[in-house]
Amino acid sequence: MTENEITLALIRSLKEGRTNDFQMILDELQPYDIAVQYQRLPEKHRERFLLHLNIRQLTELMQELHRSDQVRLLERMPIDQSTKVLDLMDNDDLVSLLSDLEPNLIEELLSRMNRDESSYIQKTMSYPPETAGRIMNNRYVWIPRYYTIRQAIDKIREFAEIAEYLNYLYIVDEDKQLVGVVSYKDLILGELDDEIEEVMYTRVVKVDALTDQEIAADIIGRYDFITLPVVDTENRLLGIITVDDVIDVVMQEANEDIEKLSASGKAIDFKTPPLIAAYRRLPWLILLLFIGLISGGIISRFEDTLQTVVALAFFMPMIAGMTGNTGTQSLAVVVRGLVAEQPDRKGTIKLIIRELWVGIIIGVTCAILIMLIAYVWQGNIVLGLVVGSSLLLTLIIGTLAGTIIPLILYKLKVDPAVASGPLITTINDILSLLIYFGLASLFISRLM
Amino acid sequence: MTENEITLALIRSLKEGRTNDFQMILDELQPYDIAVQYQRLPEKHRERFLLHLNIRQLTELMQELHRSDQVRLLERMPIDQSTKVLDLMDNDDLVSLLSDLEPNLIEELLSRMNRDESSYIQKTMSYPPETAGRIMNNRYVWIPRYYTIRQAIDKIREFAEIAEYLNYLYIVDEDKQLVGVVSYKDLILGELDDEIEEVMYTRVVKVDALTDQEIAADIIGRYDFITLPVVDTENRLLGIITVDDVIDVVMQEANEDIEKLSASGKAIDFKTPPLIAAYRRLPWLILLLFIGLISGGIISRFEDTLQTVVALAFFMPMIAGMTGNTGTQSLAVVVRGLVAEQPDRKGTIKLIIRELWVGIIIGVTCAILIMLIAYVWQGNIVLGLVVGSSLLLTLIIGTLAGTIIPLILYKLKVDPAVASGPLITTINDILSLLIYFGLASLFISRLM
Repeated sequence: MTENEITLALIRSLKEGRTNDFQMILDELQPYDIAVQYQRLPEKHRERFLLHLNIRQLTELMQELHRSDQVRLLERMPIDQSTKVLDLMDNDDLVSLLSDLEPNLIEELLSRMNRDESSYIQKTMSYPPETAGRIMNNRYVWIPRYYTIRQAIDKIREFAEIAEYLNYLYIVDEDKQLVGVVSYKDLILGELDDEIEEVMYTRVVKVDALTDQEIAADIIGRYDFITLPVVDTENRLLGIITVDDVIDVVMQEANEDIEKLSASGKAIDFKTPPLIAAYRRLPWLILLLFIGLISGGIISRFEDTLQTVVALAFFMPMIAGMTGNTGTQSLAVVVRGLVAEQPDRKGTIKLIIRELWVGIIIGVTCAILIMLIAYVWQGNIVLGLVVGSSLLLTLIIGTLAGTIIPLILYKLKVDPAVASGPLITTINDILSLLIYFGLASLFISRLM
Repeated sequence: MTENEITLALIRSLKEGRTNDFQMILDELQPYDIAVQYQRLPEKHRERFLLHLNIRQLTELMQELHRSDQVRLLERMPIDQSTKVLDLMDNDDLVSLLSDLEPNLIEELLSRMNRDESSYIQKTMSYPPETAGRIMNNRYVWIPRYYTIRQAIDKIREFAEIAEYLNYLYIVDEDKQLVGVVSYKDLILGELDDEIEEVMYTRVVKVDALTDQEIAADIIGRYDFITLPVVDTENRLLGIITVDDVIDVVMQEANEDIEKLSASGKAIDFKTPPLIAAYRRLPWLILLLFIGLISGGIISRFEDTLQTVVALAFFMPMIAGMTGNTGTQSLAVVVRGLVAEQPDRKGTIKLIIRELWVGIIIGVTCAILIMLIAYVWQGNIVLGLVVGSSLLLTLIIGTLAGTIIPLILYKLKVDPAVASGPLITTINDILSLLIYFGLASLFISRLM
C-alpha cells in the first residue's frame, strides 16, 4: 500500500467506525509513518484519529512531530491523557520539548507527571544545553553485580518494553556506581548460570554528565556503540545517550559550523519568520559593512595613485575576492579537519608548512596567469607585473591567515569556525589592498 | 588505568613474555582502544604485539586503523593470516579498504579469500560509490517465515558471533525475498511457541541497493533504526546498512556541503600532500579569477565615471562584499534546510517571499546606516544617496539570488551546494557593480 492508499483506508475506517481495521493498519506502521499519516489527514479527521489511538501510540506520534505540532497536540489532549503521554515519552525528547516552553507551563506539566519521571526530567534540565547530561535518558536496564546471566535475562524480559535499546546492560553496585557493562551478545553466548561479574567488562567507556555533547557523539561514533552511559562525578550511573541522538548531534554541529563559516546567523530554517531571520543575519552584515569601510579607507589613502591609474581599480575586486576565498578554503579545511583529528605541536607545524606550500603553488600559478591577462588586456607590462606579484603575495598570506588564525583560536579554546567571515575577511581584505596599492605606488611612474 | 599505564603494562608483558597478562589487558579493551594502543607502541614492539593477537583481535584492530595503516598492517601479516583477517572483516569496511587499492592487488586478495565472502565483496563493489549497495554488509541474521520464536532465538544464538547487531531479524521466503522483520524485543516479549509469521511486521522499511547513501542514512535517522535492509529490484535481501555507517555518511555529506559552500576543493584533510591540495583548490580559484575579471570589465566600462568621482571606488569593496555575503547566507540556509525538509510548491513560494522580506529589512537597515556614514565621511549627500540606494537594491537582489538559484538547481536535481562561490558570487558581483555605477552615472553631474 502506498502512503496515499493508507491515508484513504484510515479515513474510510474512521468514517465507518471500523476500529479493528483502523488498528490493524496502524499496527503495521512505524511511529514515523503514523506521524506522516496524521499530518496528511484533513483537519476534520484528526480529532477522531487521535481518539482511536492508545496511549503508547499517542506517545510515539508525539515523539515524531515537529515542535509546533507537538505543542498543538499537547493542548488538544485531555489533561489526564497528556500527562500519561508525558510520562511515557523518552526523557530526552521530553526535555527537548520542555526547553522550548514557558517556565510556568513547564512547571504545570511537570507537577502532573509521575514523581520519578518528573524529578528525572528536572535533573536533566539542570544540565547546561549541549552537554551529555542534557541529552541523556533513563530508558536503560541496570542490574546488580551479583546477578547470574539467567537473572539478567529475566530482568531484560521484564524491562524490554521500557528500554529503548537492549544492546547493553549496565552493572551497578550498592551506591549506584557504574562498575561494569555486558553486551546482550555476551549474555546469549554465555551459560545461564554464569555470574555477571565473570563476564562483564569492568573498563566501561562512559562520559561525565557535563561533557560536551559533541565529544559524547564522537565517542559513540568512534566505538560504534548503540548507547553510552552517562555518570556524575562520583561515577554514579545517571542515564544513557543513544545513537539516534548522536545522528542529530552530528547534524546539528555540522550545521553550526556551516552557519559560522557562511556567517549566516544562528538557527534559521524554512519556518523562521522574516523579522527574526533578518535580525539573526544583520549583526554579521553590519560587521561586514564596517569591514568594507575599512577597505574603503585604505583605498582612499591611495586616492592619488588611483586617480593617476584608474585601471588599478579594475583588478581590485579580483585580488580581494581571491585572497578572501583562499582564506576561506584553508579555514574550511582546518575547521572540518579539527572535527576528525586533534593534531599535536608537530602535526600543527606540519600543517602550517603544508599550507605555506599550497599558498606558494596557488600563488605562482594564478600570478603567471593574471600577469599575461593584464598585459594582453591593458597592454602595460608593468601593470601586469604589479597585479601578478600582488596576487602572489596576497594568496600566500591569505592561505596562511586562513590556517593559522583558526589554529590559534582552537588553542585558545574558542570555536575556530567563528574566525569565518569577519576575522579572516578583514585581515585578508586589508592586507591585499595594502600590498596591491603599496606596490602600485612604488611603480607609479612606470605605470602611467 | 590510564592509556599511558596500559601502554607500559603491555610493553612490560611483551618484553617478559607473559602472554596471559597481555591477553588479560587486551580482553578489557575495546577494538578502538586496541588500535590506539597499537599506534602508541614504539615501532620495535609492534611486531611482537601483532604476534600475540589472535585472528579476531587482528581483525578488530584492522577495522579501527586509518587507511594507510591498514595497508601497512596487511603487508606485515603472513599471507594465510591476512586472508583470514579479510574473511572476518565487516564487508563494508573491507569494500571501503579495497576501493582504494590497485586493481591487481584487489584481485590477488579476493582470490585468496573464502569464496562466499569474496563473491559478496565483488557484488558490493559492483554498485556505484555513495549508494546503499556500496555500504551494506552481510552481518545480519535471516530466518525462514515458518520458524517459531524458539527456533529464531536458537538461530540468533548460533549467529550471535557473526551478526553485527542483533536488534532485528529479517524474514525471507524461498526466493530470498524479504517478507518481514521482527525486532529482538518482540521475540523477548513473545511466547516461545508463537510463529514468526504471527509476530513479524510485513511492511518492512527497506531501500534498493542503488539508493543514494544519503537517503538511506536519512531513513535510518528518521526511523531511529539500528539497521536497514537493502534489497535488489526483485525485493531479494542483499544486505543491511548499520547505524554506525550512517554517522559516517552524515559527517561525510555535511563535509561535502561545506567543501562546496566554501569552494574549498574535494576531500582535503590534514594529511593531503601540498601538491594535491593545491591541485584540488586551484580550479575554484582560477574560476574566481575570471569572475573577478568580469567585475573588472564592468568597472572599466565606467572608467570615466570613476575618473570623475574617485570616491566611488571607496565604497566598491563594501557593496560587492555585502551583496556576496547576503547571498551566501541565503544559500547556506537553503542548502541545509533542504537536508532537513523538502518543501512543495507552496512551501517554496513561501520561502522565497520570506527571503524577499529578509532582503528588504536587511537592505533598508544597512542602506540608512551607510547613507549617514557616507555623508559624514565624504560630506556629499548625493554620494550618500547613491551608495545607500545601491546597497538597498543589491542586498535585496543578492538575498533573492542566494535563495532562488539553489532552489532551481534542486528542482533540476543538481546539488544546490555547488551554487556556492562561483555562481552566486558572479551574479551578485556583476549585478552590484552594474547597479552601483549605473546609479552613479545617472547622478554624475550632482556627484562632482
